[in-house]
Amino acid sequence: MKTYLECFPCFLNQALRAGRIATDDEKKIKRLLDEVGMMLKDIPLESTPPASGKMIYKKVSEISGVPDPYKEIKEESTEKCLALYPSLKHMVAKSDDKLLTAIRIAIAGNVIDFGANKNFDIDKEIEAALKRDFAVCDYTEFREHLNEADEILYLGDNAGECVFDRILIETMKKPVIYVVRGVPVINDATYEDAVQAGINRVATILSSGTDAPGTIINTCSAEFKKVFESAGFIISKGQGNYEALSNEKRPIFFLLKVKCHVIANDMGLTEGDMVLKSIIK
Amino acid sequence: MKTYLECFPCFLNQALRAGRIATDDEKKIKRLLDEVGMMLKDIPLESTPPASGKMIYKKVSEISGVPDPYKEIKEESTEKCLALYPSLKHMVAKSDDKLLTAIRIAIAGNVIDFGANKNFDIDKEIEAALKRDFAVCDYTEFREHLNEADEILYLGDNAGECVFDRILIETMKKPVIYVVRGVPVINDATYEDAVQAGINRVATILSSGTDAPGTIINTCSAEFKKVFESAGFIISKGQGNYEALSNEKRPIFFLLKVKCHVIANDMGLTEGDMVLKSIIK
Repeated sequence: MKTYLECFPCFLNQALRAGRIATDDEKKIKRLLDEVGMMLKDIPLESTPPASGKMIYKKVSEISGVPDPYKEIKEESTEKCLALYPSLKHMVAKSDDKLLTAIRIAIAGNVIDFGANKNFDIDKEIEAALKRDFAVCDYTEFREHLNEADEILYLGDNAGECVFDRILIETMKKPVIYVVRGVPVINDATYEDAVQAGINRVATILSSGTDAPGTIINTCSAEFKKVFESAGFIISKGQGNYEALSNEKRPIFFLLKVKCHVIANDMGLTEGDMVLKSIIK
Repeated sequence: MKTYLECFPCFLNQALRAGRIATDDEKKIKRLLDEVGMMLKDIPLESTPPASGKMIYKKVSEISGVPDPYKEIKEESTEKCLALYPSLKHMVAKSDDKLLTAIRIAIAGNVIDFGANKNFDIDKEIEAALKRDFAVCDYTEFREHLNEADEILYLGDNAGECVFDRILIETMKKPVIYVVRGVPVINDATYEDAVQAGINRVATILSSGTDAPGTIINTCSAEFKKVFESAGFIISKGQGNYEALSNEKRPIFFLLKVKCHVIANDMGLTEGDMVLKSIIK
């Protein structure tokens, strides 16, 4: 996805939000905003938003001196989600269409996003996600591809959300490679976060190598690129991965909740919409 | 009022909104955002927000080549408000406390603000303003000072809103100097807008000389400064004037609707609050 004009004020807002999490020092946050302000001229509309996210969150760490400002928030998110795990498993077990219920739960988990959101209530999100109609639902295609797949490449998004992904992985009953970011960026899941969520018990965890809040292929490791290029069935979670990959010609299913009006416009959808979208057309 | 960290993303948002009104040329708007981004580092937290507004809206005109992007919007606002004038006059005439009703109407008019707001419904605003309790209401003081005043210095804010100010001016029954901006900035009222609203029939119109969206004294003309410094009773409409004047030690009554969370925090109030606040303490 390209960068829209509306993304520029949002970049400043994201810097401010992350700056406040990283430090209480108003002078440092002002310097951060100054420097992000100066970066704007070097961001072409043709770049993807997570390419800018990468630079912005790097600046947050640089100026605040805190390499992983979201560390505690991520750990707490995962703990909270793990506490929900048994009841979510029960929800899947008793449902008529276990796969679809697990997909709904995985999308509900996508709300745990400190880049796009300020506030969210995970319990309410799950309740809503179980009832709400999908805005785009390529479920038949998803099921068909899943049946034929030998292996699934699953691109994770946020920490905490991994617990919900784990439930979908357990429900799909196929070998999964679960992909995490190479370094901490916002509250995106890294190797440690995936392990805390128990992903290591149900999948092979692979780092994409990227330091962007989205799987921008040219920022990923050679190892990941090889896996990505040969994958026959890819699940991509969240907005950041959608922004990075929406123009790739690969067998990708996007699972996400639309959390900003720019992405809503780009997809022809509305904020709050639940999406299971195939680009294998 | 100082500039808060939250103001910086808002500056970008304002530039984008004004840029879109001034031009359809995406490249020009991108250049505008780039240049406003670069300006941020030169904005100290100690400056008032309208001092930055002044520079931002100047950039909008410079880059778009449109000196007064809000010209048509202002004319339409005034026309729409003039159509409401008879029924508003009737509302005042039949009310038990005519002065208070006219103050409520003047505050309702303060919602016509293209700097702070995207959308508003003036009919609904009037209805709400007539019912809603004031968050701060120094009405007794206001009435006392009004009784003693020989002349009122009335600092206008937005075009359209002038029609509502005219009703308050007519109700106060005292000589009024009505102050407008020196040049067009956002949808703030200039001499022409005040005349279109019929202010010239009920008051002497005076330009403050400023090109900022708020009466920042050191950007005003010598003539205005003299009038301001000797005024015994000053009514200041709107956020921009509050931001510019909140630290002045003059007999000012602020009439405004709180339209952003930064000002709400600064005043210890909530967004949407109606304020009649004296700083003669």
